[in-house]
Amino acid sequence: MKFTVEQIADILNGRIEGQPQAEITTLGKIEDAGAGALSFLANDKYEQYLYTTGATAVIVKDDLELKKPVSTTLIRVSDPYAAFSSLLDYYQQMIASQKSGREEPCYVHESSTLGEDCYIGAFAYIGQGCKIGNQVKIYPHAYVGDNCEIGDHSIIYPGAKLYAGTKVGRHCQVHAGAVLGADGFGWAPQSDGSYKAIPQLGHVVLEDHVSIGANTTIDCATFPDTATRVQEGSKIDNLVMLAHNVVIGKHTVIAAQAGISGSTTVGDHCVIAGQVGIVGHLNLANKTTIAAQSGVSKSIRKEGETLFGYPAYDIKGYMSSYAVFKKLPEIYRRLNELEKKI
Amino acid sequence: MKFTVEQIADILNGRIEGQPQAEITTLGKIEDAGAGALSFLANDKYEQYLYTTGATAVIVKDDLELKKPVSTTLIRVSDPYAAFSSLLDYYQQMIASQKSGREEPCYVHESSTLGEDCYIGAFAYIGQGCKIGNQVKIYPHAYVGDNCEIGDHSIIYPGAKLYAGTKVGRHCQVHAGAVLGADGFGWAPQSDGSYKAIPQLGHVVLEDHVSIGANTTIDCATFPDTATRVQEGSKIDNLVMLAHNVVIGKHTVIAAQAGISGSTTVGDHCVIAGQVGIVGHLNLANKTTIAAQSGVSKSIRKEGETLFGYPAYDIKGYMSSYAVFKKLPEIYRRLNELEKKI
Amino acid sequence: MKFTVEQIADILNGRIEGQPQAEITTLGKIEDAGAGALSFLANDKYEQYLYTTGATAVIVKDDLELKKPVSTTLIRVSDPYAAFSSLLDYYQQMIASQKSGREEPCYVHESSTLGEDCYIGAFAYIGQGCKIGNQVKIYPHAYVGDNCEIGDHSIIYPGAKLYAGTKVGRHCQVHAGAVLGADGFGWAPQSDGSYKAIPQLGHVVLEDHVSIGANTTIDCATFPDTATRVQEGSKIDNLVMLAHNVVIGKHTVIAAQAGISGSTTVGDHCVIAGQVGIVGHLNLANKTTIAAQSGVSKSIRKEGETLFGYPAYDIKGYMSSYAVFKKLPEIYRRLNELEKKI
Repeated sequence: MKFTVEQIADILNGRIEGQPQAEITTLGKIEDAGAGALSFLANDKYEQYLYTTGATAVIVKDDLELKKPVSTTLIRVSDPYAAFSSLLDYYQQMIASQKSGREEPCYVHESSTLGEDCYIGAFAYIGQGCKIGNQVKIYPHAYVGDNCEIGDHSIIYPGAKLYAGTKVGRHCQVHAGAVLGADGFGWAPQSDGSYKAIPQLGHVVLEDHVSIGANTTIDCATFPDTATRVQEGSKIDNLVMLAHNVVIGKHTVIAAQAGISGSTTVGDHCVIAGQVGIVGHLNLANKTTIAAQSGVSKSIRKEGETLFGYPAYDIKGYMSSYAVFKKLPEIYRRLNELEKKI
Repeated sequence: MKFTVEQIADILNGRIEGQPQAEITTLGKIEDAGAGALSFLANDKYEQYLYTTGATAVIVKDDLELKKPVSTTLIRVSDPYAAFSSLLDYYQQMIASQKSGREEPCYVHESSTLGEDCYIGAFAYIGQGCKIGNQVKIYPHAYVGDNCEIGDHSIIYPGAKLYAGTKVGRHCQVHAGAVLGADGFGWAPQSDGSYKAIPQLGHVVLEDHVSIGANTTIDCATFPDTATRVQEGSKIDNLVMLAHNVVIGKHTVIAAQAGISGSTTVGDHCVIAGQVGIVGHLNLANKTTIAAQSGVSKSIRKEGETLFGYPAYDIKGYMSSYAVFKKLPEIYRRLNELEKKI
Repeated sequence: MKFTVEQIADILNGRIEGQPQAEITTLGKIEDAGAGALSFLANDKYEQYLYTTGATAVIVKDDLELKKPVSTTLIRVSDPYAAFSSLLDYYQQMIASQKSGREEPCYVHESSTLGEDCYIGAFAYIGQGCKIGNQVKIYPHAYVGDNCEIGDHSIIYPGAKLYAGTKVGRHCQVHAGAVLGADGFGWAPQSDGSYKAIPQLGHVVLEDHVSIGANTTIDCATFPDTATRVQEGSKIDNLVMLAHNVVIGKHTVIAAQAGISGSTTVGDHCVIAGQVGIVGHLNLANKTTIAAQSGVSKSIRKEGETLFGYPAYDIKGYMSSYAVFKKLPEIYRRLNELEKKI
């Protein structure tokens, strides 16, 4: 990118203090941006950096009062974060992949249908009976098994694997190496101590605006015509495990390396932090927050709770107990002494 | 599928109460099955659903006494779970992939041998000197490095990667994205603070009837002619890590995201739950159970133990202590008061 | 391999006690090596095995005094571990893949440049504008997105995925299924409870001599011209998650299934054990050690600390408290009794 401060101020409807002709070539954080960068100041905590930043220009609040002189050029706007965010979006559209058409060799079964303006990368595989929407991007080494459906504007990144029958909604992203629809982990113990596979006959469904991180795995449901399901707008990070028959509600966020066991249902607007584990057959109420690495072993009925611990319970309770846990050797000594005195 | 209740009752040698001509098109759970579905009741806890189920028919125990009227058709058999399970198996066989032959382009080195009736998907890669058994399925984007062996009836799912020299037994499944045989994580610290790779010269061996989950990684052993090994009948879930030189015994089950460090040996008939971590160079006795998220730091000599905790020990002991842990702030206050009184 | 003891002793400048003409065909551990194997004894703890080993020959310290008779042949050297290690290296070079040239079909965009003596496997994909150094190996199903750079002697293993703009230094390994450069997990909550993607515009940089394990994921940085970065000589195990904007210092080791949240900086010469979680926006001092499964929630300022716990603190403190934790039910009972007495 290459713009003058003036051009950017025009886009943002902002007021310039400093050099309108200075050139902007990139975007950066105020604390480490250098010459050519445009940055922003939205949080008072970072105001100190305004007076030392190497950024060529900084977007600030229109009523900000300077406490020291600045060497950077200011662009004053009513909402600096929103203004900067719109520039990030603009930058992203500028650099976004414009790929379309087919790279050869790719494999698209003749019985499958593709919408308009799709990109099919080299070595991508699309099996029988698939329905691919408009402006879908299927990157190299992606595998789309038989009878899959992918909605408009969705992106299947390199090497993502969709087992047969997977359904992906519109405006979804499935990042590289994610695996949707592998067999659920269901094994019936036999009398001789061996295990027999319980057939896993369902599928995986992603509703619209769902994002799945790299190398995440979502197993298929057990019964025919049922699905392990991620509902509208939910975002799943990398290396997450969703077991068979799990249902994730709408607009729920699950951070990296969390794992949810079979047949558990997570509500809407939940936040599941990194490395959390949730046992099977539970229900989590809407707006539940589970702090990182917690182990959830019971259903959560009340909305809006925050849990922590192993097993998890009320986070304030856990942290109060943990503060005393650190004193346990001292407590033990004092108890012994008390007993001697009596 | 499409059968009448009568046809299914004939297969199961069951007795019909209700409508023999009702049509069955799918299988489902009694609590959420709908019209056209066949379900089963094996566990008394679910009997309430028998009176409200939307399923067209339900398989029940031959001597079940109804407590209320039912609107569904009953098929009475001696063992409802076994009967339903056999129908699931039958359904699975019906829908199972009948893929065979080669899809082009695939890469099979001329020095490798394939058994009868194999499926080699498009973009699958089979290196030099491989021996592939009969009725093996190798899906698209699977990588089979040089000198690998794969036994009869095994399935290598899309994008699974077998480094050179991996041996897979008969009736195994390696799910999508699993990586067998990457270098063990062995680094010798040097005097300048850098690390030098310790050569990892062994391989990975899966014995018969082993299943490996999606995106699981099993590193190769360190020494030539040795192997990181999963013994007969063991089942490994998704995103599990087995480090170099690990040995997993027979008919052991390891749930998702568990990790086992280098040179540890796990016995037969063990159950390792999700997100468990086990340190290196340990031995776990047969029939050991490790509860979810536990950290195992010592060998377990006695068979049949169940451990929990961080580090893990007797689960009953841990849970008793954890119950008191929740009261620690109160205990601390009471101890302070006691001291003041004396 | 096939050598006589004498040939090996010559290479190692060692002194033989036993049979110089005995044949060595493999290398192995002293406790389980068999006929034909060469082993070593570097650690006194293993000396017992010297008197029972099945190995044909054992490398020992030049001044070792035998406590019992041995049936194996000895090769005496000044540093047995270094001598054996050099043989492992030699063995590895012997068996190392000599692959070079292109296997077809592969996809290399005409605008990309390749150095001398590269290997490009079948179904490998190299996008536009890439710069690939000399003696680079890119295995089958590896994906190298547009404008990537890969330095001399680096290896991209089967199915590893490099999103556009990734930079890999010299002498690096990226193991199978690793994903470099997927979108960072940044979502801005909207007033209606949904999430809007925060554009992730940066890249991933691996400096020289970095190793990335199988199925590990490293997300791209948020800002343009910035990178999630692994510095020189650091080694990352399998299934590790490094979030956007993370920086890993030089010669740091991170074990399997650890996860580091966004914008955290880890110092040089750190050791992060398996399944550790580190929250975002922290700084870890050089030479920090984090024990397995710990959860780090605060920055670590002092060098050389070892932490453990959930949340993590001084490992000695944690283990002392945990020893008392196991006695909590007894402590609670004794406290109740004390209160009754007073």
